[in-house]
Amino acid sequence: MIGAGPVGLFQVFQLGLQEIRCHVVDSLPAPGGQCLALYPDKPIYDIPALPRCTGRELVERLLTQIEPMAPTFHLSQQVATVAARADGRYDIGTSTGTHFTARTVFIAGGVGAFQPRRLKLDGIAQFAGRQLFHSGDEPPSAAGRHVIVLGDDDEALDAALTLSTAQSALPASVTLMHRRDAFKAAPEHVERLRAACAAGTMRFVAAQAIGFDAAGDTLTHLQVVDADANTTTWPCDLLLVRWGLSPKLGPIADWGVPLARKQVVVETETFETGLSGVFAVGDVTTYPGKKKLILCGFHEATLAAYGAATRLRPDRVTALEYTTTSTRLHRVLGVDHQP
Amino acid sequence: MIGAGPVGLFQVFQLGLQEIRCHVVDSLPAPGGQCLALYPDKPIYDIPALPRCTGRELVERLLTQIEPMAPTFHLSQQVATVAARADGRYDIGTSTGTHFTARTVFIAGGVGAFQPRRLKLDGIAQFAGRQLFHSGDEPPSAAGRHVIVLGDDDEALDAALTLSTAQSALPASVTLMHRRDAFKAAPEHVERLRAACAAGTMRFVAAQAIGFDAAGDTLTHLQVVDADANTTTWPCDLLLVRWGLSPKLGPIADWGVPLARKQVVVETETFETGLSGVFAVGDVTTYPGKKKLILCGFHEATLAAYGAATRLRPDRVTALEYTTTSTRLHRVLGVDHQP
Repeated sequence: MIGAGPVGLFQVFQLGLQEIRCHVVDSLPAPGGQCLALYPDKPIYDIPALPRCTGRELVERLLTQIEPMAPTFHLSQQVATVAARADGRYDIGTSTGTHFTARTVFIAGGVGAFQPRRLKLDGIAQFAGRQLFHSGDEPPSAAGRHVIVLGDDDEALDAALTLSTAQSALPASVTLMHRRDAFKAAPEHVERLRAACAAGTMRFVAAQAIGFDAAGDTLTHLQVVDADANTTTWPCDLLLVRWGLSPKLGPIADWGVPLARKQVVVETETFETGLSGVFAVGDVTTYPGKKKLILCGFHEATLAAYGAATRLRPDRVTALEYTTTSTRLHRVLGVDHQP
Repeated sequence: MIGAGPVGLFQVFQLGLQEIRCHVVDSLPAPGGQCLALYPDKPIYDIPALPRCTGRELVERLLTQIEPMAPTFHLSQQVATVAARADGRYDIGTSTGTHFTARTVFIAGGVGAFQPRRLKLDGIAQFAGRQLFHSGDEPPSAAGRHVIVLGDDDEALDAALTLSTAQSALPASVTLMHRRDAFKAAPEHVERLRAACAAGTMRFVAAQAIGFDAAGDTLTHLQVVDADANTTTWPCDLLLVRWGLSPKLGPIADWGVPLARKQVVVETETFETGLSGVFAVGDVTTYPGKKKLILCGFHEATLAAYGAATRLRPDRVTALEYTTTSTRLHRVLGVDHQP
């Protein structure tokens, strides 16, 4: 299973009802997909029978629902390769080296794997992991170092303010940079930024990075340009790019799954893709009438689970059973001993 | 809109998001369909993000969700006729004489209209509404009359026990009849029945009705036969048939909507039927991969709403909007002034 967003989680549930166990891989550090990454606290109104619920609540409810299915999560990694084997199964490898062999693969990839928006400057990538850190990376101690933070949202301001007010391991300097003096961050964050700049514990520079200086393999300065085309150079030992996460379809394009306009083509009877045994559900798919809505993904995941069950057990008719009445499903759900 | 089960209710919601108002007709006296009529207190486990909820709770949640859409319900009546007009609209008539003219019709008919299982005896129908009453009918006072109740479930035992223990308006006699001395009713109900029979306040007869006696147009006796083929005759002024409700596809078959195995054939892009402007969703439909699950009906209702919107406003592209972010949808939902 690729993707632990709401549709991926419900896919786990429906596969569980078919007594099929799942390994779930997601690029984010926690299950929930964009619901949790992009709008955890915004209310959603069109989940059936949930008149109003936040992204966070939706994810929590789904995690509760799939508890009986006991999936194994493999987080903070991306499925890099999906390769067909001679025996009809698939070899699956992730960006962190986890390997699986599976008879069926489910792509619940949403709008793609969430990856940090990266600073694009010729040659800058050589400092990644040493002096250059993007959103989601854990930077090293900033003690005694000249730190530059790029960004204008809460994440960026928070990083700069936290460093400038550190009780110990204080940096030599903290500079926040954004191309103009206007911020996406919450007003209270901006107010704290103004106060910190006025107090001299940090500074703000309205400019964009255009180059860097290095001494050997060490980054020493960042070159920036402002709105009036003035170029300045700032000392920089540690560069924190805090531009958030952006979804990328990523390696799915290389697996041989037929795509149309960067969407995975599925048929609507079983939600199987053009690759036998590979199913796709949710926002990553396209078919006539497709609407990118969570509730549609729930339906797709259900039919895909029946499709997979029929494929895995071709000798057995996969009859429709109801969770209200089926003793088999009550056993699967662990409610067979409840009143 | 035909049918006020969970899928019909969510159809109201999705049409509401498209700013299309609904009249909803259902044969039952309250919205909820079989969820409420057949299993109000049984838990359902496969509604996405509702790990466990009863049929009653599901219906209550959906009714809350559709409040902003303010549908008009026409209950305890069945759509009898759907006839195409020359102008492309439809004339719709119900069993109680309500008439509509509509540009789109939605069939969310489930397994059909719920109707009482009727006693089939030549000539007995003449007493209906005077001395013969089926499930769902409101019978008149039984004071001083010989009452026979047919049935073996909670509904039947409840009717007989209530009459036999009445504080006022006591019947002359109360007889429960079922073909054999075994009951579907809950054990505590059966126990109360045994006690009432032992106390002489009512009696149980294991037999089936095979005929009746009448004086003029008045029913006087019921003729019954037991398992040993013995025929007996019992005085009967009031006959309560408590055999429950049974779904019937009913008049849908006469409207010209193409069917396959008594299911309405739909295409999966817009869930339109073979009749232009007539859409069908939920258990009444069939298409490749169809599963009769409530959550699939929610998806079907969503795509049908887009289909109807495109039909009603062909000049306007019906773009996908999200309830999380769309100011138009916030206005429709009445949440535009909430924080």
